[in-house]
Amino acid sequence: MDDVDFRVSEVGPWRVGRKAMAVNLSDIAAMAAVPTAAVVSVVLPKSCGQDFAQELYRGLRERADEFQVPIVGGDTNSWAGGLVITVTVLGEVTSRGPVLRSGAKVGDTIFVTGPLGGSLAGHHLDFVPRIREALLLHQHCDLHAMIDLSDGLSSDLHHICQASGVGAVLHADALPRRSNSGTIAAALNDGEDFELAFTVGPADAEKLRQHPPLPVWPVGEIVATGYWLDDQGHRQPMQPGGWVHEI
Amino acid sequence: MDDVDFRVSEVGPWRVGRKAMAVNLSDIAAMAAVPTAAVVSVVLPKSCGQDFAQELYRGLRERADEFQVPIVGGDTNSWAGGLVITVTVLGEVTSRGPVLRSGAKVGDTIFVTGPLGGSLAGHHLDFVPRIREALLLHQHCDLHAMIDLSDGLSSDLHHICQASGVGAVLHADALPRRSNSGTIAAALNDGEDFELAFTVGPADAEKLRQHPPLPVWPVGEIVATGYWLDDQGHRQPMQPGGWVHEI
Repeated sequence: MDDVDFRVSEVGPWRVGRKAMAVNLSDIAAMAAVPTAAVVSVVLPKSCGQDFAQELYRGLRERADEFQVPIVGGDTNSWAGGLVITVTVLGEVTSRGPVLRSGAKVGDTIFVTGPLGGSLAGHHLDFVPRIREALLLHQHCDLHAMIDLSDGLSSDLHHICQASGVGAVLHADALPRRSNSGTIAAALNDGEDFELAFTVGPADAEKLRQHPPLPVWPVGEIVATGYWLDDQGHRQPMQPGGWVHEI
Repeated sequence: MDDVDFRVSEVGPWRVGRKAMAVNLSDIAAMAAVPTAAVVSVVLPKSCGQDFAQELYRGLRERADEFQVPIVGGDTNSWAGGLVITVTVLGEVTSRGPVLRSGAKVGDTIFVTGPLGGSLAGHHLDFVPRIREALLLHQHCDLHAMIDLSDGLSSDLHHICQASGVGAVLHADALPRRSNSGTIAAALNDGEDFELAFTVGPADAEKLRQHPPLPVWPVGEIVATGYWLDDQGHRQPMQPGGWVHEI
């Protein structure tokens, strides 16, 4: 939705199209599935010309093409309101099955696939969905639970905890940050990182630390209860979507 | 889209939800396929409360339930703009394969499954998508080409003619009209009838006239070239989306 998920007047239709496709491919990555086809419906403002529509479509298709995903259908409409793009991506699970949010176990290590925070400076429009990374990790490890980071690690990891009936501890100084000036709060809460967060058991965690098939960062552990941020040895309660630093 | 496809302030979210699901099921009917699952994304105006969202969903689900179609995913968002609903329905073709727009042959009879015109008085919100009818006809006949009537018979039949490389003649006095006061122009051009128009060869046409498995109306024939309306023996050129009565 224009002015919510992007500002098309500032960034142009090509980048918006890329984002719209990428966020939906990211949902397929979150389950370690293979995207197979996309359906795209666009509601164009009447003021937009054909060039606008073509640039939007080019952005959508370029991102889809990178993953050999054909756009197989959809709808194009116009109205007096703002731009809305709806993408449905279909996917197939591999022989290892899907990775769900509900499989995290006490003792698991929590990993993320990239730096967090500050996405709104541009990353949220240009990120590459972690399809290949998810499939590679799925081959190498027994992924217990996984999610893509759209709302922010503190919120999205909480979804895993709720679905799995467990708690978690994150280590503040282990969080990879997009920029040196990025705060821990930004890494936890900014959202739209579109990296993957996943949990694996002790043996796979050790394997990923020693011989990672791709860059991954261990950021915490699954525990029986509670939701915590460990900051230099001080464990504090963490809130999904906005942790509270208790002095 | 609110104020384009419906006016939610006048008809309420339940009927809007029913229409949004039905028009997409109608697209599956047009190919004589079996709908298997639906994905629904809604963009709600921020002013709408939870009751509104629930009524909208109830409408969507009731129509889907009538055809044993589960809603398997989607997205819910809100913004400062108007209501937008996007539905993707997945379907499977039967062992007879899909019916396309491209199979009409010279000598085919053109049939429709119900009365036409005047849909905006209410039918466009409450129609039942012709899934069962399409599957029944597909069992009984060799359907050469089919389409669902969303733009109006004069436009939609033209799509069949273009895809099949043929022409057509419609018989004005054979067109079933929704109301006694409905004009021929309304039957041809109003749109949103969501009946099926299909073509079959001579043997199947005779069978459908003698022993129809459901009510169908023969309304014309496929010819080699031209696009015509036959009105009491006078054949006039017909325009898709607005035929011109030449005096």
